Amino acid sequence: MEILVAKSAGFCYGVKRAIKMAKDTIEKSKVNCFSLGPIIHNPIVVRDLEKEGLKVIENVRDIKKGTLVIRSHGISKDESEYLKKNPKISVVDTTCPFVTKSKKFLVRLIRGGYNIFFLGDKDHPEVKGLLSYINNRAVVFKDPDELEIKNYKKVGLISQTTQKIELLKKAVDRLLSSTEELRVFNTICKTTSIRQKEAVELAKKVDLMLVLGGKNSSNTKKLYEVCKSVLNKSFHIESPKEIDTRWLEGVKKVGITAGASTPKEHINDVIKFLRDNSTEENNG
Amino acid sequence: MEILVAKSAGFCYGVKRAIKMAKDTIEKSKVNCFSLGPIIHNPIVVRDLEKEGLKVIENVRDIKKGTLVIRSHGISKDESEYLKKNPKISVVDTTCPFVTKSKKFLVRLIRGGYNIFFLGDKDHPEVKGLLSYINNRAVVFKDPDELEIKNYKKVGLISQTTQKIELLKKAVDRLLSSTEELRVFNTICKTTSIRQKEAVELAKKVDLMLVLGGKNSSNTKKLYEVCKSVLNKSFHIESPKEIDTRWLEGVKKVGITAGASTPKEHINDVIKFLRDNSTEENNG
Repeated sequence: MEILVAKSAGFCYGVKRAIKMAKDTIEKSKVNCFSLGPIIHNPIVVRDLEKEGLKVIENVRDIKKGTLVIRSHGISKDESEYLKKNPKISVVDTTCPFVTKSKKFLVRLIRGGYNIFFLGDKDHPEVKGLLSYINNRAVVFKDPDELEIKNYKKVGLISQTTQKIELLKKAVDRLLSSTEELRVFNTICKTTSIRQKEAVELAKKVDLMLVLGGKNSSNTKKLYEVCKSVLNKSFHIESPKEIDTRWLEGVKKVGITAGASTPKEHINDVIKFLRDNSTEENNG
Repeated sequence: MEILVAKSAGFCYGVKRAIKMAKDTIEKSKVNCFSLGPIIHNPIVVRDLEKEGLKVIENVRDIKKGTLVIRSHGISKDESEYLKKNPKISVVDTTCPFVTKSKKFLVRLIRGGYNIFFLGDKDHPEVKGLLSYINNRAVVFKDPDELEIKNYKKVGLISQTTQKIELLKKAVDRLLSSTEELRVFNTICKTTSIRQKEAVELAKKVDLMLVLGGKNSSNTKKLYEVCKSVLNKSFHIESPKEIDTRWLEGVKKVGITAGASTPKEHINDVIKFLRDNSTEENNG
């Protein structure tokens, strides 16, 4: 059995940065070290960091002192204001620079008087955080086909960093006829686009495609969707334990890709599992 | 033979306005009445106005005094400056308000530091005029597929008022992946879009489609293209004289549409010609 791993699989710049900053913080602070929500969307990584001393809390008001690591998805305006008022909490901000950029663009759009459309998942922490800075004055949508479109003068369009570029293009296509001005900020991070593109190319070449990453990870879910669209035998897994060996029957080529919050070691675990479980037949 | 005329066929708002202003000017001034280039892209209408007293000149420097009617497509910065310096020339500006709007948007884009892409015909007076206000600092293109695209930070996209919305959407599609910000001004005038949409619907229902309007008219040429794409038996004519009666053989339904610079009388002439030349057979 041949195993092909996508070049772009695994940690992106923002995640690498967040993990490094979190580890440095744990090392320095030792105690009273918290992260607001899971630092990245990978339960295994989060559990490991928790063992090292980074406690996940769900509400910023749950701590009165100590060090708070802000996760890569960022925080809301309300949370940010709470932290500013509490000097006993020292803050380590690992917000992905691309998310910070989106915030800047959103504020620019709202100040410019645009009707804002936001491609993304309204329950995702990145989206919830970002929208809080413009008092939720945006239409959040996942499917451009479902957009109710009126006539506008100025439309601003922006996206969650981990969305599919095809969906953003579809939204542009729908909005352009109904507005005089359409200002689009392509905030889909390059790594996400490249990873999706490579995943599709790889899925076309193999008999089985494994997409590795947190089940709560937006970019991994999107990655799985694009693979599934070209190869039915595509699966989203968090660890090799989920691989059903029947999937491997008759398989000659397996493709692996992984979301932005998946460490290299997890990819290696999957490769090892596949090697250990490939039969004579599909080894040939 | 059934004759179906598109509801939106003929004079648009801007052309109606320009013709009215030109006629009013001729009536008032009587002599020394000029238009810079043909006032609209319809040779027959232009000839009629010339008979009434509106002389077409090609260079603004050809007149020293009198009344100059600026045509619906607008003028260049250089021409505008010349006129400002010559108080003996009184100016009647019939520039289509939609073209004036495009100028405003272009200036906004250049001031904002955008890389400007302009969908249009670089030799069309509207385009030449508009671009002169930004010292031609734009990539003018007709076919989005031919665009050479690099990586940009800020891209501004704008269109000649008479282009096809599909081409603008295609350009957006190509540019969006290569820039952080894409600011599109949909300057295609609504009448143009509606006229094209209706023409396509009509062409689908008939056996022969006649598109009436100046051969130098951008919007008529586009109208012909969209009809031809759904019905091979589509023809672009300026007057009924060009109709080859062989086109009518076996035809049960004829569709007629007309460009923005085509007067109602011309449409009526075509209808009359068709009625006079339809055989018993295709009259039935």
